[in-house]
Amino acid sequence: MNPLEQLMNPSSIAVWGASNNPAKMGTMQLSNILGTGYRGKVYPVHRSEETVAGLRAYRHATEVGAPIDLALLVLPTHAVGEVLEECGAAGIKRAIVVSGGFKEIEGGSGIELEREITRMARSHGIRFLGPNCLGIFNSLCDLNTTTIPLPPGGGHIAIASQSGAYTAMINPLLRNMGVKICQTISVGNEADIDLTDCLDYLKDVDEVRAVGLYVETIRRPREFVSIARATVKKKPVVAIYVGGTEAGSRSSLSHTGALTGPDELYDGLFREARVIRADDIDEMIDMLWALSSQPPAGGDRMAVITNSGGPGTSLAYHAEKVGFRVPLFSERLSASLADVTGRLAFVRNPVDLTFETNVHLFKQIAEVIFDSGEVDGAFIYGIFGWRDFAVNMVKRFPALIELENSITAEQRSFMEKLGEVSRTYEKPLLVMSFLGGESDTVQGLAENGIPAYPSASRAARAMRSLMAYGAIVDGLG
Amino acid sequence: MNPLEQLMNPSSIAVWGASNNPAKMGTMQLSNILGTGYRGKVYPVHRSEETVAGLRAYRHATEVGAPIDLALLVLPTHAVGEVLEECGAAGIKRAIVVSGGFKEIEGGSGIELEREITRMARSHGIRFLGPNCLGIFNSLCDLNTTTIPLPPGGGHIAIASQSGAYTAMINPLLRNMGVKICQTISVGNEADIDLTDCLDYLKDVDEVRAVGLYVETIRRPREFVSIARATVKKKPVVAIYVGGTEAGSRSSLSHTGALTGPDELYDGLFREARVIRADDIDEMIDMLWALSSQPPAGGDRMAVITNSGGPGTSLAYHAEKVGFRVPLFSERLSASLADVTGRLAFVRNPVDLTFETNVHLFKQIAEVIFDSGEVDGAFIYGIFGWRDFAVNMVKRFPALIELENSITAEQRSFMEKLGEVSRTYEKPLLVMSFLGGESDTVQGLAENGIPAYPSASRAARAMRSLMAYGAIVDGLG
Repeated sequence: MNPLEQLMNPSSIAVWGASNNPAKMGTMQLSNILGTGYRGKVYPVHRSEETVAGLRAYRHATEVGAPIDLALLVLPTHAVGEVLEECGAAGIKRAIVVSGGFKEIEGGSGIELEREITRMARSHGIRFLGPNCLGIFNSLCDLNTTTIPLPPGGGHIAIASQSGAYTAMINPLLRNMGVKICQTISVGNEADIDLTDCLDYLKDVDEVRAVGLYVETIRRPREFVSIARATVKKKPVVAIYVGGTEAGSRSSLSHTGALTGPDELYDGLFREARVIRADDIDEMIDMLWALSSQPPAGGDRMAVITNSGGPGTSLAYHAEKVGFRVPLFSERLSASLADVTGRLAFVRNPVDLTFETNVHLFKQIAEVIFDSGEVDGAFIYGIFGWRDFAVNMVKRFPALIELENSITAEQRSFMEKLGEVSRTYEKPLLVMSFLGGESDTVQGLAENGIPAYPSASRAARAMRSLMAYGAIVDGLG
Repeated sequence: MNPLEQLMNPSSIAVWGASNNPAKMGTMQLSNILGTGYRGKVYPVHRSEETVAGLRAYRHATEVGAPIDLALLVLPTHAVGEVLEECGAAGIKRAIVVSGGFKEIEGGSGIELEREITRMARSHGIRFLGPNCLGIFNSLCDLNTTTIPLPPGGGHIAIASQSGAYTAMINPLLRNMGVKICQTISVGNEADIDLTDCLDYLKDVDEVRAVGLYVETIRRPREFVSIARATVKKKPVVAIYVGGTEAGSRSSLSHTGALTGPDELYDGLFREARVIRADDIDEMIDMLWALSSQPPAGGDRMAVITNSGGPGTSLAYHAEKVGFRVPLFSERLSASLADVTGRLAFVRNPVDLTFETNVHLFKQIAEVIFDSGEVDGAFIYGIFGWRDFAVNMVKRFPALIELENSITAEQRSFMEKLGEVSRTYEKPLLVMSFLGGESDTVQGLAENGIPAYPSASRAARAMRSLMAYGAIVDGLG
């Protein structure tokens, strides 16, 4: 069994390093376990305090007198070994070692120490994450062991990362974008469990539909390729790699003790593994959002539907720039669109509705276009909420407030139907909108599986990942 | 005198097309004029209503009986000519023609109509924006004539655009990022006032420190180049151009009747004009934020200061990727940094402080590094606010709430001092943070002239624009 099964879904956790000092990392992490809604048992272990953060504290893990599924160690480097012995004595088989000061230390003095704790863990049958990691988040059991609160749980994205920041610090970014996240794993120095183990675990978590990896090194390339190829049969994998320049490489070494290689080497490795490479964390999130919620694109022909010329032109331009075609529609399709819109102009691709307030038109147009078979996917730029844009109106026209429920209900129903369009035709549909995760529009779209991006280039690159995954799936035959 | 002087700073405005129907564009635009804080006089003109949106309405502009500096026309195409005559009769010399249906119409039927209104305006000495535009925003007099409320006014950025969306629809995006905007001008079809006029006007607005342009065509290339070169002596100019692909070109034509050219042509034109080209609206805003608040970079050597390995490595990688060097610090500088940080390791560039809560260290490190002369700019990744990350702590440790004022005051003072560092050493400093415009951190940094970007690649590309402007300024001798 993959060691992460139990580590990600523990029924009980013992925590070392939490105290009643709120400035300590361990205290933050315990607070986040308690504050995120975790329903299992939590046992702080402390050598002197009677209570920690309002919970009864135990002097020693063996004092707990009940099974402990997971140990969380947020301790000074020198104390880790002793506590792993304690875990062994208490029969604990899974651990997260947050503590740093091991392989990543300049000069190599931590290397032997890391080997030592690894040997010690192994002798007790303990499988562990870290050291030098930030822990995990699993929205399926509301467990957040990291220092960062408010992960926007839900959705179908998982991230495994050699940087803790890219699993937890990104929480505010995800919220601002309106992206939800199902699971994250910070692997740190990978003394035991590594990214390949994570991929192997995430492959079989049904709720996870797309996996992102932050990579400074791949320690077992052969196994990685084999497990990645098995994973992409079920779900797409995206990776970022930042070790491939001089300072990037130097920085990786001091960060997780990673021995990096040139960019081209990792390009080749990812290609071999059928992993889609992203440029940076924001692009990876953009791609994961699309890949976890929309069908892959079966080809390179894209439609652009807009109610504003600039964004429509930008979508056409950036779609072409990243390798799509934005073909002129046939006379027949244009005639059908003219019937639907009641207009003769601007229906040749892009379809420009200019200041159209009937949201249902967007859905009808997408259907007619998908039904024609002339495109493999579509971009929509439009405004589908109203409150963000009616602030000053509502002040002057109180009648709008009375209408609020009906407007909102109509928009909800539109977004549901729009979500169905791409599922029905199995063609991807991405939205561009300047609204963020706090808006009704982006939230409503996201709930119905439609990602919304704040620029044409970001939408285009996310769509490209859907075409890349389409090609990967085809290649698997 | 530039026609935009009076158009951007009117003491009084007459509005055609607003009514008591909140679903009409004109009503939205009037509501935004009234709701954004404009302090001049506003006169709705309506042929039948007695009052519009709570204001006295006039049958005819000549009825107003007081000088009118600006006319806003939000009317059906066919009504524009008649109202321009009315403006002439009332002595109005500036207008914004929002109405569409002119040159941008497929088949060319609107071309003659556009010539006609232009001749008519000229015969009355009326200079106008549009047709087919969204109007203007000027935070210096709180005037917002667009359909979109809540422009985040202030700051030192101006945008002039052939797309209305890229001047006004972007308001929520700007707010989410924490970017403020001073002036925007939507030029539409440019029958009279064009982008070159805008540049000429913005060149002399002292509050504007960086100008962005959304370009589908440059109608007077020779004048554009000459005025742009005069502008960049005072402030940088950034442009996006999306007409350079097949569908992009087709879309531009139907959007503003723009005749586009290939990408390379515009690359050359921008180079000739000393205008920095951005890829898309988000990159343009990123660049404008840096260029309007930080000094240009005098060279390509960058420092990276971080309290988290992944973002630090990513900053080093992306800085190198876009053409910077991230040089290893000298022994001497490293020794000074070790003195400041009390650490021996991780001070060679990147400087990695890992989980450092003393914010003042970041400022001291930036000073020591800038003082050494070994770099031309610096990136910082760090957390400088606390509330976003202490939600669950505050619940468990009420003492933190008591400490709130002192923590917040300390962080404010740190951000002020950090803002001074780049001004003192005349070297740019950009922050990377996953927090958005709603956070204390990003707001505090922005107030002190430090932009914060949500990814390493975005920070790196924004810094590259500061190096590009440095080279432009140097080239001017």
